[in-house]
Amino acid sequence: MPSDDEFMRATWRALCVHGYADLTMQDIADESEKSKAALHYHYGGKQDLLESFLDHVAERFLSRLRDADAAAGPNPDERLGAVVDAAFSPPESDELESTQRALVELKAQAPHQPPFRERIQETDAAFRELLVDIVTAGVETGDFQSDVDPGETAQFVVNALAGAQLRQVSVGEEPTTARRVVEQHLERHVHTDGGASGE
Amino acid sequence: MPSDDEFMRATWRALCVHGYADLTMQDIADESEKSKAALHYHYGGKQDLLESFLDHVAERFLSRLRDADAAAGPNPDERLGAVVDAAFSPPESDELESTQRALVELKAQAPHQPPFRERIQETDAAFRELLVDIVTAGVETGDFQSDVDPGETAQFVVNALAGAQLRQVSVGEEPTTARRVVEQHLERHVHTDGGASGE
Repeated sequence: MPSDDEFMRATWRALCVHGYADLTMQDIADESEKSKAALHYHYGGKQDLLESFLDHVAERFLSRLRDADAAAGPNPDERLGAVVDAAFSPPESDELESTQRALVELKAQAPHQPPFRERIQETDAAFRELLVDIVTAGVETGDFQSDVDPGETAQFVVNALAGAQLRQVSVGEEPTTARRVVEQHLERHVHTDGGASGE
Repeated sequence: MPSDDEFMRATWRALCVHGYADLTMQDIADESEKSKAALHYHYGGKQDLLESFLDHVAERFLSRLRDADAAAGPNPDERLGAVVDAAFSPPESDELESTQRALVELKAQAPHQPPFRERIQETDAAFRELLVDIVTAGVETGDFQSDVDPGETAQFVVNALAGAQLRQVSVGEEPTTARRVVEQHLERHVHTDGGASGE
């Protein structure tokens, strides 16, 4: 029995090659070891499969952030740095523009695909919540400035990441550019002097 | 003879209704007073028409920003506020989510549509240049903080606007949220005390 992961990898590849507009179940089957019939047996149709795919992408994204957070230890400076680093450095770097394009195309369907929007909103809320937790902890420990609003800091980071994603696709700009601006903002506004970013 | 503007309005409406993936020349003709033959006569095909459409959107966007800048007078605080206001407040507010979705879909084609990317890059460069001009002027007059880097400030604003556009489409967030974060950043980092934003 094929693992879900195999279908998910095939979906990634097919989306990168064909784009959302022209994507067929056959394209996805062609990228896997399995038949189109097996794909339909597992997922029903393209809509079901893409919903599972969004769940899969969300899970990978959030795991990457949470793993980075856990590996950073208890210090809020280190935690925030590690999570921002993980968010702005997706692993698929050899074909990053294609994978980002596939995600932007799926996100563009959200206004008329409520199941897509729901998944994207859930991921967004979980990402924000992680950021709010870290910033709240940093304010409490005094690692961050006392007047920092955790919700606004989280909003700033999630918006900058969305901007980096769209700009990578539209103008071909590397996400490192947006990330530098985020890090400068956090250094000035959030960290107190002597935080991890200033060492 | 139909004005180009009539075709451009029809393209907007057709993109909002059908999305990029399913858009046909017939859909666009159906939204105008003219025939599909007239549309082909003017534009050759969908590709040509969408390139003209991107030029049209860019021209409107940049005109809106330059008009706002000119109307603000010579004070850099007022100029920056007016341009940010214009950038974050597109006029098509009754169906803003659909129009933003159409633009995000076109931007998502940029990696494999060099004529699209070229146009988007030109518009981006012109938007940045306007911001750099204003911030440079403000640093010279002392209205802005002396250590402000105009290029980085411009980068911050263009990235935040891209983030707001993608987030409006993907999670349904109003651009006012991103705009508030931008204004706070500019108030703290760019304006000196007593600037327009603090009055």
